[in-house]
Amino acid sequence: MPQKVDARRLRIGMAQLNATVGDFEGNLRKMLEGVERAKALGVDLLTFPELAVCGYPPEDLLFKPHFIAENRRYLQKLVEASSGISVIVGFADAKEDIYNAAAVIHDGKLVDVYHKIFLPNYGVFDENRYFRPGDRCPVYTIAGVGVGVNICEDIWYEVGPASLQAYAGAEVIVNISASPFYFGKADVREAMIATRASDNIAIFAYNNLVGGQDELVFDGGGLVLDEKGRLLARGKQFEEDMILADLDVAAVAQARLKDPEWQKGTMPWKEKPWRVTRATLSDKPFSTEKPSISPVKVKTRSLPAEIYDALVLGTGDYVTKNGFKKVLIGLSGGIDSSLVAAIAVDALGKSNVVGVAMPSRYSSAGSISDAELLARNLGIKLLTVPIEKVFQAYHDTLAGAFKGMKPDITEENIQARIRGNILMALSNKFGWLVLTTGNKSEMATGYTTLYGDMAGGFAVIKDVPKTMVYELARYRNYRADKALIPSSVIEKPPSAELRPEQKDIDTLPDYELLDPVLKAYVEEDKSVEEIIALGIDEEVVKRAARLVDGSEYKRRQAPPGVKITARAFGRDRRLPITNRYKGW
Amino acid sequence: MPQKVDARRLRIGMAQLNATVGDFEGNLRKMLEGVERAKALGVDLLTFPELAVCGYPPEDLLFKPHFIAENRRYLQKLVEASSGISVIVGFADAKEDIYNAAAVIHDGKLVDVYHKIFLPNYGVFDENRYFRPGDRCPVYTIAGVGVGVNICEDIWYEVGPASLQAYAGAEVIVNISASPFYFGKADVREAMIATRASDNIAIFAYNNLVGGQDELVFDGGGLVLDEKGRLLARGKQFEEDMILADLDVAAVAQARLKDPEWQKGTMPWKEKPWRVTRATLSDKPFSTEKPSISPVKVKTRSLPAEIYDALVLGTGDYVTKNGFKKVLIGLSGGIDSSLVAAIAVDALGKSNVVGVAMPSRYSSAGSISDAELLARNLGIKLLTVPIEKVFQAYHDTLAGAFKGMKPDITEENIQARIRGNILMALSNKFGWLVLTTGNKSEMATGYTTLYGDMAGGFAVIKDVPKTMVYELARYRNYRADKALIPSSVIEKPPSAELRPEQKDIDTLPDYELLDPVLKAYVEEDKSVEEIIALGIDEEVVKRAARLVDGSEYKRRQAPPGVKITARAFGRDRRLPITNRYKGW
Repeated sequence: MPQKVDARRLRIGMAQLNATVGDFEGNLRKMLEGVERAKALGVDLLTFPELAVCGYPPEDLLFKPHFIAENRRYLQKLVEASSGISVIVGFADAKEDIYNAAAVIHDGKLVDVYHKIFLPNYGVFDENRYFRPGDRCPVYTIAGVGVGVNICEDIWYEVGPASLQAYAGAEVIVNISASPFYFGKADVREAMIATRASDNIAIFAYNNLVGGQDELVFDGGGLVLDEKGRLLARGKQFEEDMILADLDVAAVAQARLKDPEWQKGTMPWKEKPWRVTRATLSDKPFSTEKPSISPVKVKTRSLPAEIYDALVLGTGDYVTKNGFKKVLIGLSGGIDSSLVAAIAVDALGKSNVVGVAMPSRYSSAGSISDAELLARNLGIKLLTVPIEKVFQAYHDTLAGAFKGMKPDITEENIQARIRGNILMALSNKFGWLVLTTGNKSEMATGYTTLYGDMAGGFAVIKDVPKTMVYELARYRNYRADKALIPSSVIEKPPSAELRPEQKDIDTLPDYELLDPVLKAYVEEDKSVEEIIALGIDEEVVKRAARLVDGSEYKRRQAPPGVKITARAFGRDRRLPITNRYKGW
Repeated sequence: MPQKVDARRLRIGMAQLNATVGDFEGNLRKMLEGVERAKALGVDLLTFPELAVCGYPPEDLLFKPHFIAENRRYLQKLVEASSGISVIVGFADAKEDIYNAAAVIHDGKLVDVYHKIFLPNYGVFDENRYFRPGDRCPVYTIAGVGVGVNICEDIWYEVGPASLQAYAGAEVIVNISASPFYFGKADVREAMIATRASDNIAIFAYNNLVGGQDELVFDGGGLVLDEKGRLLARGKQFEEDMILADLDVAAVAQARLKDPEWQKGTMPWKEKPWRVTRATLSDKPFSTEKPSISPVKVKTRSLPAEIYDALVLGTGDYVTKNGFKKVLIGLSGGIDSSLVAAIAVDALGKSNVVGVAMPSRYSSAGSISDAELLARNLGIKLLTVPIEKVFQAYHDTLAGAFKGMKPDITEENIQARIRGNILMALSNKFGWLVLTTGNKSEMATGYTTLYGDMAGGFAVIKDVPKTMVYELARYRNYRADKALIPSSVIEKPPSAELRPEQKDIDTLPDYELLDPVLKAYVEEDKSVEEIIALGIDEEVVKRAARLVDGSEYKRRQAPPGVKITARAFGRDRRLPITNRYKGW
């Protein structure tokens, strides 16, 4: 008897959505469009990201029973619109507890619900706060193909739901994710998933969320990799996308038959407390005639481009998702505010960005002309509001209280705070959001004025070290093929210009020296001794550590900003203010 | 043969310490004093609170290996000083992972380490972020008495280490805690522990931390309850203490012999994955001649007293543990700033509190005289810094930008921000910490100016609803037996005085109506529909919910303040800023 030829193929579509937290209506609209488009493209299995119904991360909204109910109601609308297709979508499931869940929808019916097993509770994540872990690894037969479904963190473990599902018959592993960006992570992800795919001799389809949400940027870049770990499709990074691929499932079955290790069936996870379940949704595809598609492998970005585009997406989404149209930026003529203005223009368009120059008695002529040149280059409106008169009024008003005392940092902070107040007044009057311009080196060392230059709604580059600020400025000019950010801005020594002849290096070590110390101390939890042992000057290390530790109270009152490193300030790093531990 | 009479007694001492996070030296000093005092008192078993070695909660300091090493080094110093006594103390244990641990020390040796099993990861707690749970329930024989040791959350579960230890032979259960205060919690705790004691026919010794740490106040109030749940000793609330009791262990053994249920030995936790271990440290006490002691049952406080004293402790500890001596408060003549000034004086002494009156063109004569009278009553220095000149300078400076536009909330915010700047300038010049004066009703609704009245280092009453502010003011006057806070301050209608004839009720519902809505919406996660169904005016509820949701961005930049309710803003309530979910 001749053996029946296995010619199974599965057309997968992964909708890489930019969902918004709590925007049930908007998220549903995008999903319904996705369903229509997928059907037209002959997609057998359509996926949406983790918690796409309610947005990720919903944080303590999950404690509101009416929020969960609303999310369930909108899931039902998607279910009803999904006849003639299989769909996997993330939502918050409430039973005896709350679960981070994937709905498995087939032909207009909710067939099953998967509960995420590995809940991340480190870095920016608090999933143990909300969710109970699942204990079941389901395998579905969809169009005759074995499909395993799991969620984000689940796939990061070598022995996890994916491996269990693969050995239980899943030829395709679908992972729906909401994986926040930091630079370099896309490569780490791709290498990890390629390993999982070849280890488990399965096709892996990884559907990541895209978009900005407070401090997080989800960078998309969904992936389909075959059973040898070879790339079949890669979605756009930082943009919505529909990632399509025809999966040669027969090849998976064949590869497994030929693999001696696989045939032995030695399972390293025998002691794991998860159950495998199986369900058949369909033995055949809904349609066999399908329009032809050509899977796309979007190129990966270089490092400065990746960071720059993350900042653009994070800033644009924060502004627009919070209902603002225009932003306001104090332009000092320095590199930080210049970079922020360029990012804002790329995110929102030049007509939605307003610069404000606020010269003082200490502003150099170069600063003013640099700010003007930048505004001209970017094509943005520039207001000029000198602070001298208000500064003088503070002087006069405080003369009595300050009698007999010398000028010090107080007078510098007053200037910064006058500027903060002027920006906030313009914001209040015109409804524009203030973007702040402090970088990570300043946020780390506290070289910034609370309620002064820290005043605003969103801190675009708060996770970008100063040395990287220069790199990004040069990158943006390279992309523009001209000095969009004026060369004089890039070349002059950094200064806050709050007293005569002031330079950053009067207070801080040179940034080339400082930034590696800050990375080791803040991002890598190295001790002062360990950093000194790397060959860095003891005085620099101790000063940096002292400044970082002493500035926690300022950071606690900072506006949110885009996380681009493996450890940002904010939710990612939770240190007490009251803390007598001194490692220096 | 006559039966041997069981006359076993154990003298326990619980050192209710005010430990500081990261202050290894200071915490050790207090512990060494405790050891000396306990030895002199003939104490057999001395306990210290949860993580007393390093302070609680150390948060991400736990990720620094050198912090953990330092904590281990200081533990060793305590071990070496503990000859002739048994000691139980909390520290952070690092093995293959980090554990929230209790060191069991006997006669100068570290005998064993218990690892906390139940890790709280809700509310203000993030213990899953740091710790791995333990899996072992040890029972020690100390001076011939069976003692079970566990930590804080462990005791809150009916079936937990305590019940397992009791049935395995522990006659005394020691629980070392760091349990943060909210009003009413002390009663809840005492009732819970009494139930555990009688359920398990064991003496329960509950040693709680005391002191302020950022947003948390640990209220102490340690407890010793006998095997019937009867109170043997209650420690001071909000103060350090050494709680002493002689435990009649023979009575426990007898009660168990007489209890038919106990004799049946039906154990409901048979399926729990914890191992019981047993170790004998000593069969007899170190000394039999002991000075006589009389256990103290400190009276519990009434509700306003409890809250008031929590605010005093939290404020005093924040200021002093962060190295400040003096504080600065903007005095408007209103109830909020008056209450904050009274709390500050009680926390730091009148010579360490400076009031600043900052009258404007809209300040009523009554406001100014009320501020003066308050300062006189409290005996604090009052500076007067009128804001008119600076306000006028802002007007002039912004006249061009604001041309053709009517005055609105912008001008109100400018005034509030001028005051914020003046306070910060005084803070910068003199090194005094600024206390802010906003209450929870304002923080909830956003009826407050970012960088204005929100500017400062510590927000004393940010978790106190406005109606409770009145209650506390009246309570303080009752305690003083005079109108320390002037009657006119308590009686006049609340106003921000930022425009002519302004009253809070122009913008907000009456606080008597508003506060219950805020409690239901913010603290109880009730939906708008559910709150309306309680019989509250629809418009009030919807307006309140809208204001709360729209003010998340302000709260994110607020200074920390004392948590006194079951759900405070801050770590306790983590909502996204970017959030399109509208329940109204």
